[in-house]
Amino acid sequence: MLPGIGLFGTGPDISVLVSILRERGFKIEAIWGRTIKEAEDVSRELNIPFFTNKIDDVLLKKDVDLVFINCPPFLHSQISVKALGIGKHVVCDKPCGLGQADALKMVRGAQYYPMLITLINHSLRFLPAFSQMKKALQDEYVGPQSEIGLMDIRIQMGSLLHNKFDWLCDEKMGGGALNLIGSHVVDLVSFLLGRAVRVHGVVRTYTKVTQNVNGIRQISAPDFVNFQMELEGGILVTASLHTNIASKTFVQEVMICGRDGNLVVKGGDLFGQKKISEREEALYVDVQDLHCSTSDAHLPKPYIKGLCKMVSALRESFAQDTWVKEPVQAAATFEDGLYVQAVLDAIRKSSDTRSWVKVNIISESPTNHAKILNATRMSAVIMH
Amino acid sequence: MLPGIGLFGTGPDISVLVSILRERGFKIEAIWGRTIKEAEDVSRELNIPFFTNKIDDVLLKKDVDLVFINCPPFLHSQISVKALGIGKHVVCDKPCGLGQADALKMVRGAQYYPMLITLINHSLRFLPAFSQMKKALQDEYVGPQSEIGLMDIRIQMGSLLHNKFDWLCDEKMGGGALNLIGSHVVDLVSFLLGRAVRVHGVVRTYTKVTQNVNGIRQISAPDFVNFQMELEGGILVTASLHTNIASKTFVQEVMICGRDGNLVVKGGDLFGQKKISEREEALYVDVQDLHCSTSDAHLPKPYIKGLCKMVSALRESFAQDTWVKEPVQAAATFEDGLYVQAVLDAIRKSSDTRSWVKVNIISESPTNHAKILNATRMSAVIMH
Repeated sequence: MLPGIGLFGTGPDISVLVSILRERGFKIEAIWGRTIKEAEDVSRELNIPFFTNKIDDVLLKKDVDLVFINCPPFLHSQISVKALGIGKHVVCDKPCGLGQADALKMVRGAQYYPMLITLINHSLRFLPAFSQMKKALQDEYVGPQSEIGLMDIRIQMGSLLHNKFDWLCDEKMGGGALNLIGSHVVDLVSFLLGRAVRVHGVVRTYTKVTQNVNGIRQISAPDFVNFQMELEGGILVTASLHTNIASKTFVQEVMICGRDGNLVVKGGDLFGQKKISEREEALYVDVQDLHCSTSDAHLPKPYIKGLCKMVSALRESFAQDTWVKEPVQAAATFEDGLYVQAVLDAIRKSSDTRSWVKVNIISESPTNHAKILNATRMSAVIMH
Repeated sequence: MLPGIGLFGTGPDISVLVSILRERGFKIEAIWGRTIKEAEDVSRELNIPFFTNKIDDVLLKKDVDLVFINCPPFLHSQISVKALGIGKHVVCDKPCGLGQADALKMVRGAQYYPMLITLINHSLRFLPAFSQMKKALQDEYVGPQSEIGLMDIRIQMGSLLHNKFDWLCDEKMGGGALNLIGSHVVDLVSFLLGRAVRVHGVVRTYTKVTQNVNGIRQISAPDFVNFQMELEGGILVTASLHTNIASKTFVQEVMICGRDGNLVVKGGDLFGQKKISEREEALYVDVQDLHCSTSDAHLPKPYIKGLCKMVSALRESFAQDTWVKEPVQAAATFEDGLYVQAVLDAIRKSSDTRSWVKVNIISESPTNHAKILNATRMSAVIMH
């Protein structure tokens, strides 16, 4: 009944994903790695029956119906579009390819094959604290939604880098705090409150060399981002992402302030306080054990818990004869992924030009590099 | 031996100031209020021998040698300059008047009477956690000072407003989060790391009416500020000041990240973590009782504790036959106050123009309003 799974990627979080999938009854049929050695190692370690370093070998396998793309971002678009063409469902890791051009190809693929599931793994949407926060906003816990003024996000964590030079060190290959954490934040904001009209940001790479990465290769992927967004309804969003502080404790606080009070998600718990009240109340405390193996994961806990819930939703979605949309309704689509890329582009541009930049979602594939540059430059000019 | 004190202001924090001063042996000789009734009430409540609503009556009193100016900012400059002319020492509350023009007059007064003490009450400089933080930076706890990359300040607190309409509701009269809290933050940054070259900020007034302030009078003083500064050495500073969240708990976190680790002051405690270490260490824990009466104070605790230390330093300074500078060396001068005003101006301008604005300290008194406007506009233009 459940679709067989083909996995793309052999990164450190793959074993977490595999156990989450298996615990929910999915069968892993095949794994792809960039080298045959990497694929073989993971296949042996995780007991996956088939391994390969050829993309088509996974996609053409008859018992693979759903692919999870967890490899470096520069392959996201290529694998997604190919998979859809062959008729396979796709769950793709964030960010949605390397930029808007990649994301647009994925959106077109998804539009062309609407009978296939096409999701981006923005797992925070499925974290109970955030679904509860969304519900509390709808119930006007902080007052009328038209009078929500501010959302503030603060994330602090240890380094995102592995112990060697790879795509994570390179901004252009999709690494860094903006692509990896910023994309989740931008998506979460749009899930809870709506989309951004314009943004301002400062993007910095403080750690350019580490003990393991030095010499001629330097780290270009940013480890710090501070940004502000103005949403369609006028709400101001401020975000501060530190991914390279010495204390490795993961801190994530998301606060929304309205006329009558505020809501805060700390880690996986939701708290609320009304202005008329003397004290904060716990609205959702994440005590339930989600039966995830999180021990050796790189991923922070809220992201893993969200992923567990998302895989459960996928399971429900496939539990019928044909899959149904409702259980995965809340998930981020490829189109959401394109929007996120547009915001990340605008934040990068803002950091370069020291100005607010309008978010400009492309609808035409740029034919060459110059065109992309031009489009982003134009949006900066329009702002002045 | 200690100078007699003349107080200007009858606000809710005056009783805290009086007990801090008295506990350190200072004698309060006179109090000034805007109305004779306010002055009389406080004088009776706090047992101060003389009260008046005439500025000169305090300044001309023979047994008053040091004045504490704690009244609304629009009077700071006038009282300071007059006091210096009559030969009295001055400790003035932040911000330093209503703007740069006011602050410049105060700076000129201080320069003209260098034998008199002229301080701004930026009490955080005296909070032990911050003196320890400064020392740890000098000792290269986070690595070489040239490689400090980032300072992040986060402050959350309840409303700054009183229960009626007064200057605190009005930005132009010196009220609001930027003048009252932002000024402390800007000063603290310059104390720890140096001065800003350019800034970007978003300044917002979310609460425009309250139960007590409504009708034709609206609140113009901002309750939220988010700003970024680039310091002379290239350090980036990010700050987020929420002064109107529902939870009234005071939160203040100041983090500095360097090549080898980070330092954080939370409330009055200092923590440090080196990148090579697995855990955070407490470098200074504020357990000592500073013998302050803080019970009914509006002021957050770290500010009161800083004030206690500052008054102790003043006492030491006057403990000789003639006052000596060393004990109050660390304090903010009127010149620091002028710099802070220049930064606040630039943040306001940035919020209006959605651009980074160069910090421009005036050195000429503007002859009219147009000149001031022009000066700030120019600095915005130069950035583009």
